[in-house]
Amino acid sequence: MSNELTVAPSFTVCGAGLSGTLAALYLARQGNRVMLYERFPDMRTSTVPRGRSINLALSRRGLHALETIGLAPVIRPLAIPMRGRLIHSQQGDLTFQPYGRTPDETIFSISRHQLNCALLDAAERWPNLEIHFSKRCVGLQLSSLTLDIEDVPTRTVRQASARTVIGADGAFSVVRQALQRTERYDYAQTFLPHGYKELTIPALPGGLHALEKNYLHIWPRQDFMLIALPNLDGSFTCTLFLAYEGPESFARLTDDDAIRRFFDHYFPDVVPLMPTLVEDFKYNPTGSMVTIRCFPWQHAGRVVLLGDAAHAVVPFYGQGMNASFEDCVVLDECLRRHNGDTAAAFLDYQQQRKVNTDALAELAYENYLEMRAKVASPWFLLRRRLEYGLSSLLGDRFLPLYTMVSFTRIPYAEARARAARQDRLLDIALAAGGVAGLILLLWLVWRWLG
Amino acid sequence: MSNELTVAPSFTVCGAGLSGTLAALYLARQGNRVMLYERFPDMRTSTVPRGRSINLALSRRGLHALETIGLAPVIRPLAIPMRGRLIHSQQGDLTFQPYGRTPDETIFSISRHQLNCALLDAAERWPNLEIHFSKRCVGLQLSSLTLDIEDVPTRTVRQASARTVIGADGAFSVVRQALQRTERYDYAQTFLPHGYKELTIPALPGGLHALEKNYLHIWPRQDFMLIALPNLDGSFTCTLFLAYEGPESFARLTDDDAIRRFFDHYFPDVVPLMPTLVEDFKYNPTGSMVTIRCFPWQHAGRVVLLGDAAHAVVPFYGQGMNASFEDCVVLDECLRRHNGDTAAAFLDYQQQRKVNTDALAELAYENYLEMRAKVASPWFLLRRRLEYGLSSLLGDRFLPLYTMVSFTRIPYAEARARAARQDRLLDIALAAGGVAGLILLLWLVWRWLG
Repeated sequence: MSNELTVAPSFTVCGAGLSGTLAALYLARQGNRVMLYERFPDMRTSTVPRGRSINLALSRRGLHALETIGLAPVIRPLAIPMRGRLIHSQQGDLTFQPYGRTPDETIFSISRHQLNCALLDAAERWPNLEIHFSKRCVGLQLSSLTLDIEDVPTRTVRQASARTVIGADGAFSVVRQALQRTERYDYAQTFLPHGYKELTIPALPGGLHALEKNYLHIWPRQDFMLIALPNLDGSFTCTLFLAYEGPESFARLTDDDAIRRFFDHYFPDVVPLMPTLVEDFKYNPTGSMVTIRCFPWQHAGRVVLLGDAAHAVVPFYGQGMNASFEDCVVLDECLRRHNGDTAAAFLDYQQQRKVNTDALAELAYENYLEMRAKVASPWFLLRRRLEYGLSSLLGDRFLPLYTMVSFTRIPYAEARARAARQDRLLDIALAAGGVAGLILLLWLVWRWLG
Repeated sequence: MSNELTVAPSFTVCGAGLSGTLAALYLARQGNRVMLYERFPDMRTSTVPRGRSINLALSRRGLHALETIGLAPVIRPLAIPMRGRLIHSQQGDLTFQPYGRTPDETIFSISRHQLNCALLDAAERWPNLEIHFSKRCVGLQLSSLTLDIEDVPTRTVRQASARTVIGADGAFSVVRQALQRTERYDYAQTFLPHGYKELTIPALPGGLHALEKNYLHIWPRQDFMLIALPNLDGSFTCTLFLAYEGPESFARLTDDDAIRRFFDHYFPDVVPLMPTLVEDFKYNPTGSMVTIRCFPWQHAGRVVLLGDAAHAVVPFYGQGMNASFEDCVVLDECLRRHNGDTAAAFLDYQQQRKVNTDALAELAYENYLEMRAKVASPWFLLRRRLEYGLSSLLGDRFLPLYTMVSFTRIPYAEARARAARQDRLLDIALAAGGVAGLILLLWLVWRWLG
């Protein structure tokens, strides 16, 4: 066993966020010696920077990745099932939209912090996995495969050589920056004109939830929206998505009065539930949302990217973490299939994942365009009912896009292509239905006249 | 006059390539004090690095920019009219495709070097325009608007403060890098899997051209192609566009034999005209082709990008220089319109240009996909004839896309949208023609049987 450990290639993982820690776990399980560097102190024993935690929605792909490595029993109790969207109109009316076709098709609200802590707990149990906190990767020399590791408290930098580097260091990845300096590197970063702000609805006395617990709450307001996801302690983590500039924007909400007026006008039912609204709004940072696309994801079979470092997406399909966890599963499979030949494994992984995370980026962006407005439209609701109706008639031959993305592991690109075909079918069905309705109407009028 | 000069804002232009020098000329004409920095020595008195000069095709937009500033009389004698494409098949057959609807609709082959020299000659005549060669902008601090200017021979860097900075320093612009470090900056660089290699067909004795002079010669071979543009001295500048990797690629053409076999097989009619083929192929660098998209193009009304720094495109529509020259015209108009208010002028310029250079990037990429293969297809030729026929019938109400791009100043985005509408019309016309033809055929068969 000890011989196996020294023979196996060792992996250096940069970033102990969600995807880095899960990747390290998968690599450790294969018997590799794994070194995991994290720029922040151990989050299990230190305070978290406030207001940067769009709550997470765990769905099929993410759950599958956790199940495969045996973590589902630890994670499930941390997760609150959300059966569907609960839409809040400006007048306070509520509309329910189930996520699934059956009651067991639910997504799960989970705290990023608690999930990450659980992953770190699990990682610590592997003797062949070392975690170094407050150590930040600030540079990578590709030729020698040497990492510059900064000890954050002292700001001293030492060199660490690596055999294989996994860049899981997020949307502004330093590992990716080394790849970006290679020849003919494709790279794109695209920011949304909207930012986000985290807010809180605290628990009622006795740890009760102030809103219905098992739903994702949405207040769609055309050009902006508020969402709320339940936490275990009875509170809700809320996120306001709002333009940076323009008539209704973060730029206009600079003083207490303006903030209060804005919420009183657009979200009157929430204001009484947010006692620290104005303080939260002022002190929590305004987060930006970026889509990152790059290629290649790997270099010479020695360096590979995963998670946001490879494909940051905007959060509107709730799939960022799920896709990153799927990266870990596919990378694990590729390394096994190619028997430790990292060059072949990384190419295979990249080939499988790039097209699908590109498709996810499109899906997430399309939902950004549509979600604020569409979920409140009667036409959208009609189409949605028809889709779910067709799906119960035709079973797996007709799956709504949301179902394919959230409740199956059909690759994103395939899901997107199938949905486009189904959309055309639905258009035809709707047109035929319209014509039939018109004929019926004419017949009724004719009978009534006769 | 001297008072006017000190009052007028002064402009620092980084890059004395084609667009930087023309921009400096336009700014000097407005009475501004202009400082122009160029990293290379004065090209009029020093040798040029070899093999980096895809020959240029000057068309309406570029000519208009030169006319507006009074340079047409200097430039015209340097330019060789090209009346159309001359397509060389692998068997040596020639097909002529005129560019224009009338003989005066031609594009012009011009040497990048000679054009740039002519612009520099013109720039030197303005007393309020200073050119500094071998001075490279290596950094820009946006807060203080200070440039780091490296004296290239001594590699010493000094700071120069600026009032307004024009970034005309190419696809890998240092000025743009400063903008890229600002918050929420959109940036994308996308490389083609093809590279290019410059080759030469020397003049025949007596300065005669070895191929027909007034044409752009194309050897389309599906996955790769060779083109040749005429020079004044009787030579042709040729460019081979070929994939970096794959069965027929630069990666396979590493020794003399392979190079010779490749050319003998695919371009047998050219080989006898290229006595230094193998040497040129081996010693000229393989150039890469990149599309750059970024936004915003300006910062605080103090810094603005133009040319490749703002929107490098692939060369397949022959519009890179023409679009950059159009930038100079629009920037000039905006500065006049807003009476020297650079903040308003830069926003206006960016608003006008961004959408159009984005459209050009698409056009150029689409031509990359189609040009190697399409120009040789009979179906393409049929459609093309129909387009030109419709255009002579309908006049300016139906303009082929190539005509709009190359022989008008219709904004690129508008040209692209009009072409899409016309394409649909043409599809209908072709379908109707097909049906009519079928009916005619059936009638003939019926008469013949009867």
